[in-house]
Amino acid sequence: METQRLHNFNAGPAALPREVLETAQQELLNYQGTGLSVLEMSHRSAAYQEIIDATEASLRRLLGLDERWAVLFLQGGATLEFAGVPLNLMRTGRAGYVVSGHFAQKAQEEAARYGKSLVLASSESTGFDRIPSLEGVEAAAAGCDYVYICQNNTIFGTTFSELPACGDTPLVADVSSMFLGCPLDVERYGVIYAGAQKNAGPAGTCVVCVRRELVEGGPALAACPTYLNWELEARKGSMYNTPNTFGIYMSGLVFDWIERQGGLAAMEARNRAKAQVVYDALDASDVLHGTAEKCSRSFMNVTFTSGTPELDAEFLSMAAAAHMTGLKGHRLVGGMRASLYNAVTLEEAQLLAALIDEFGSTHTRAESH
Amino acid sequence: METQRLHNFNAGPAALPREVLETAQQELLNYQGTGLSVLEMSHRSAAYQEIIDATEASLRRLLGLDERWAVLFLQGGATLEFAGVPLNLMRTGRAGYVVSGHFAQKAQEEAARYGKSLVLASSESTGFDRIPSLEGVEAAAAGCDYVYICQNNTIFGTTFSELPACGDTPLVADVSSMFLGCPLDVERYGVIYAGAQKNAGPAGTCVVCVRRELVEGGPALAACPTYLNWELEARKGSMYNTPNTFGIYMSGLVFDWIERQGGLAAMEARNRAKAQVVYDALDASDVLHGTAEKCSRSFMNVTFTSGTPELDAEFLSMAAAAHMTGLKGHRLVGGMRASLYNAVTLEEAQLLAALIDEFGSTHTRAESH
Repeated sequence: METQRLHNFNAGPAALPREVLETAQQELLNYQGTGLSVLEMSHRSAAYQEIIDATEASLRRLLGLDERWAVLFLQGGATLEFAGVPLNLMRTGRAGYVVSGHFAQKAQEEAARYGKSLVLASSESTGFDRIPSLEGVEAAAAGCDYVYICQNNTIFGTTFSELPACGDTPLVADVSSMFLGCPLDVERYGVIYAGAQKNAGPAGTCVVCVRRELVEGGPALAACPTYLNWELEARKGSMYNTPNTFGIYMSGLVFDWIERQGGLAAMEARNRAKAQVVYDALDASDVLHGTAEKCSRSFMNVTFTSGTPELDAEFLSMAAAAHMTGLKGHRLVGGMRASLYNAVTLEEAQLLAALIDEFGSTHTRAESH
Repeated sequence: METQRLHNFNAGPAALPREVLETAQQELLNYQGTGLSVLEMSHRSAAYQEIIDATEASLRRLLGLDERWAVLFLQGGATLEFAGVPLNLMRTGRAGYVVSGHFAQKAQEEAARYGKSLVLASSESTGFDRIPSLEGVEAAAAGCDYVYICQNNTIFGTTFSELPACGDTPLVADVSSMFLGCPLDVERYGVIYAGAQKNAGPAGTCVVCVRRELVEGGPALAACPTYLNWELEARKGSMYNTPNTFGIYMSGLVFDWIERQGGLAAMEARNRAKAQVVYDALDASDVLHGTAEKCSRSFMNVTFTSGTPELDAEFLSMAAAAHMTGLKGHRLVGGMRASLYNAVTLEEAQLLAALIDEFGSTHTRAESH
């Protein structure tokens, strides 16, 4: 049965580039003449070692990570690393969190199991509709093992427009939903980590980039499960035990695709253009409006609503009829969310913008009758 | 480029049924008319919920697990669960381990981070060539939160011929390399868990079956990362956070395939027949011999050697010439290992047996010259 592929605005797992899927499909029974599928290949084989090495090298080129950084391909998602961060880094037992949304809050709460987990700033009082003021973060950072941010808040559609100043304290950033969507000034960070299932491949891999100097001597806390020992995983090339071999291979295909598209600067230009198209439509609409404060708007996840569940549902059913999927907002906030990850095209963003326009004019007409 | 697919004797990741790979290939860009690849489908979508529900249901049918059991599809491999087991179950701070090989030892050492981790029996002194005597385990079990075994030792090619008696103390079994290779008497266990990458799908999923009564009230220890909280994962249907969506889908295809083959009893009959063919060839050979004690022999992983690294290397290169892969023994022990998982056919086991015969006669001839 041939059916049309949908326009995929899912927040993650999310759209993958068609070329990447086609390559994976072609190679699925026999990877490059090895006589094996990547799915059934030993992680200790030479063929697989080449795959993971090339994947890591490609990621290092994209982000500009030199040998001061370890690059790990782990499992368990960002959620498992909510524990991994304090277990590895909480050497004096105090860390500072900027709570800009649900996942930053989860991370802050998880760290409280292992030590003092201070909220240095929060936008909870405004429903996480913005990145909180970062005033005071730098002063508080001095007494912390690290300062933690979730740089793009998938659920609320917000992004940091600037990073907090932290002095000498390492900045740890969960960049899951913006990873590889734009260049990062890596000099500013101590740890950059991301669940892959947005811009970097299918679900089941979490990429952790960590400055080696931060994990010298092993985890901060004895309660750290061996699997979460970043220093060990760095020494073992992410293969202390069997990694998610196929997930890493798929991520490698995605990284190669990004390189062919011109790298992260090209991705950012495309992504900002896509977001602009959708935000412009929202700003021009009398019926739908964006939910994030303008200066905190994410270029990856655009959150919006009509203000009523009935109209939102109507919009979502029009979108479904137009072969669009994944536009329903997160269950915590309702409304709509369009995730405009790398594999979503400008044409798809334009289709969505046109639908927003059309929805506005339909309802304006309806009201004038 | 068309190349022959290899005979795959890898210990894991390992051979997958060709039918399963073909289905995955066919559906890779568009899963059953949904317009999306499983790789880019939201884990919160109705389509994906159907996949994971059907996967769980199929596994429950295969193993005979009723609602007293929670079935979890987690990430991080058995290695992460080496910590998950004590973190969830060590309520009084004492557990007993039967150390029959490398992975049982790793699990025992990991538990020592969290409490008293007693070695109730060990075969380390004989190089783990057998399952240790279980005498005394039952008496010691009484003072333990659980008794732990690794039921099939992939590296050493051994399997428990009988389970230890533990009285009322729950038995926790890492069954990774025999999972779904034979029926299990589930009434005997408290926890049955396995990395999927042997008989149950690709790498990146760890299946944890746990009696709900054991995790009532949540994890035993406060240091338990939320991701490892089995009680929570049970309530959330393995979706507290994004699971390895594609890995679980592939496991579902494998479970369906096993059901079509006649289920676990049929698998066991096939697996025992395959192992018999290879062990018979080894027992008849003057050059190669099995390394495990006969009464501890595994029907899934057959370990053998010539006794010299040179002859072993020669055997491995003959095998490679015959399109066989994955026969090199684990780096800790050297020699050879043939993993005869469900997807390896009887014909492939016969080819291997023929090679063992041929190798024996070549070298006997060579010696007689």
